[in-house]
Amino acid sequence: VHKQLKYYLMAPGPTPVLTQALSKMSEPLIHHRTPLFEEVMASVREGLKYLFQTEQEVLILSCSGTGSMEGAVSNFMCRGDKAICVRGGKFGERWSEICTVYGVEPLNIDVQWGEAVDPAIIADMLQKDSSIKGVFIQASETSTAVAHPIKEIAEIVKKYDDTIFVVDGISAVGVFPLPMDEWGIDILLTGSQKSLMLPPGLAFAAVSEKAWKFYEKSDLPKYYFDLGKQLKKQNENQSTFTPAVTLVIGLKEVLDHIRAEGLDNIFERHDRLARATREAVKAMGLELLAKNSPSSAVTAIKSPEGINGGDVVKLLRNKHNITIAGGQAQLKGKIFRIAHLGYVDIYDVIIGISALEMALSELGYKFQLGKGVAAALEIFNNDLKA
Amino acid sequence: VHKQLKYYLMAPGPTPVLTQALSKMSEPLIHHRTPLFEEVMASVREGLKYLFQTEQEVLILSCSGTGSMEGAVSNFMCRGDKAICVRGGKFGERWSEICTVYGVEPLNIDVQWGEAVDPAIIADMLQKDSSIKGVFIQASETSTAVAHPIKEIAEIVKKYDDTIFVVDGISAVGVFPLPMDEWGIDILLTGSQKSLMLPPGLAFAAVSEKAWKFYEKSDLPKYYFDLGKQLKKQNENQSTFTPAVTLVIGLKEVLDHIRAEGLDNIFERHDRLARATREAVKAMGLELLAKNSPSSAVTAIKSPEGINGGDVVKLLRNKHNITIAGGQAQLKGKIFRIAHLGYVDIYDVIIGISALEMALSELGYKFQLGKGVAAALEIFNNDLKA
Repeated sequence: VHKQLKYYLMAPGPTPVLTQALSKMSEPLIHHRTPLFEEVMASVREGLKYLFQTEQEVLILSCSGTGSMEGAVSNFMCRGDKAICVRGGKFGERWSEICTVYGVEPLNIDVQWGEAVDPAIIADMLQKDSSIKGVFIQASETSTAVAHPIKEIAEIVKKYDDTIFVVDGISAVGVFPLPMDEWGIDILLTGSQKSLMLPPGLAFAAVSEKAWKFYEKSDLPKYYFDLGKQLKKQNENQSTFTPAVTLVIGLKEVLDHIRAEGLDNIFERHDRLARATREAVKAMGLELLAKNSPSSAVTAIKSPEGINGGDVVKLLRNKHNITIAGGQAQLKGKIFRIAHLGYVDIYDVIIGISALEMALSELGYKFQLGKGVAAALEIFNNDLKA
Repeated sequence: VHKQLKYYLMAPGPTPVLTQALSKMSEPLIHHRTPLFEEVMASVREGLKYLFQTEQEVLILSCSGTGSMEGAVSNFMCRGDKAICVRGGKFGERWSEICTVYGVEPLNIDVQWGEAVDPAIIADMLQKDSSIKGVFIQASETSTAVAHPIKEIAEIVKKYDDTIFVVDGISAVGVFPLPMDEWGIDILLTGSQKSLMLPPGLAFAAVSEKAWKFYEKSDLPKYYFDLGKQLKKQNENQSTFTPAVTLVIGLKEVLDHIRAEGLDNIFERHDRLARATREAVKAMGLELLAKNSPSSAVTAIKSPEGINGGDVVKLLRNKHNITIAGGQAQLKGKIFRIAHLGYVDIYDVIIGISALEMALSELGYKFQLGKGVAAALEIFNNDLKA
């Protein structure tokens, strides 16, 4: 066996770190209560507004994405409130769990894992019960690689003055369009380790004017994740508590990079990589988990009959030094997931598909080697000619 | 003016990052659900037990120190509980604020800023009211540079089965002795950006068996900071939520370094740097804020009559490229603070005192230039001969 030394990170987060950010973050640490750091903060505040397509401040929290999810409940809901939670995967379940912990009653919409929610169900629930305070959802449900119809749901929720629309965009912001202000999303979240091409450790929350009114009324306990306090501090280019300085410095590099590429190009690139990945696995005779509305961040593939998805993950790790993701919870062993978000481009897909072909071949899956890569090349070739 | 290019970080956190950690953290990111990361976790779990002088698991959280303080309340207290909060500075106030947010009634002991708490007050309160569930304190109150008498208070609290002793050791663990198991501290916290010589972004909490029983009864909401869930995951060398992978990798380097130096040597080094700093400023005719029990982590110095402490901080920053800290809240303008913890040794103190001499001289303070450095050299010379 050839001992692979080069490591490839192809899981849906953490994703590979932007080289310029890695380099900048390896410089000696600076203090955060300094004009130098405040300049960095001023720059990232603007860059985040561009990324989130919003005029609102994007709050920076030092935690993983889940911390921002907890903050999205504890800052805006009240004890005893009712909230719709779309449960179409592991992260949808997380909304429901957080609500329960805080004494918010989750009204769960259980969507089959692999499917997107039908907006009509939400419209119906809101119409029947106008006391529902929030609708909590994922833009991209990472565990199933499904994108929920955010624009359509935003249209519905914005009709209700007493209901906010809370979108976990952790693996979606900077991957496909989620223009917060234009669509009327009230709270939009993301994390540093997805399309933002940074190590994990930062999370982000943008809050609409409508949602800030909910903040004023909220009676749930919050301290570290108090978003109102963070807003005040950010307006002074500071942070309530000691921020993860290194990551904020890396963030400036990343946001400069994002602005240089341009959001439209970024969305197009992710769409291209996702289409190529899907066509490649279909050409290999494999089936996607996402029945409709696949996410551009990650592709979930059903493991072929007789092959455990976990074995695909292990073989890629042990022999190819490539990290992809397996299935979680009820999908364990049944699927594997290849990500294509962040600091990746067409040749990363070629590597991923090539490795997958070899791994499945070794595990006894019968197909014509090279079929997958050929299908991906076909997509890229057409796109490049266009 | 000579344009200084070399930057010195002499604030009480963030502190300079260990060079080996900086280098290791600049390598390409790895995924956390991999055997490679699990090996790192196994190593840091052992290293943290050594640092905390405990047999208990030290829980790793991706947040700043304040997140671990919030967790120390929300995981162990119940709504309506009473808790003693020693308020002798800004961080003592934080305990009281967090308790209030969670509906825990803070019984505040207001200690004059610059003084250590008298353990007899705590003994008296506990004797009069056995329903008090917790005693919350700082080992080193960073805002005043005072060390509270932790050993003595632990002796008192351990007599009460229904009371736990919670110690914020954020700028104390790895600076001076706090042997958790031996003294009977129930919860001991620290952060990554102090003696641990890492960037901010990780916090740590060790929990005694006695405190875990309080966890079982606690009815306060917690999700991201749920320490019981984190304990289960750490036993599998994992983390509840995506950890700040880069910092955990740096942590391994740091803990290896700490073990190589040895805790006793580390405590002795910090004590030496603190003594030298105190003698130096006294030789310059300056007064310490700490009336008794100064912390070995940082020294708080009263600004001389007619000189604003903030101007000392600014001059050191603008002309010498050195970050020290000013006073916070009621001490703003009245003091400045020079830290000597983490990846620092005797020549860092020489630099700090030299710069302070020049800055105070420029601001019009009358003293014989070189007096401070001479006093520090005297200490170091004696120690080196011993």
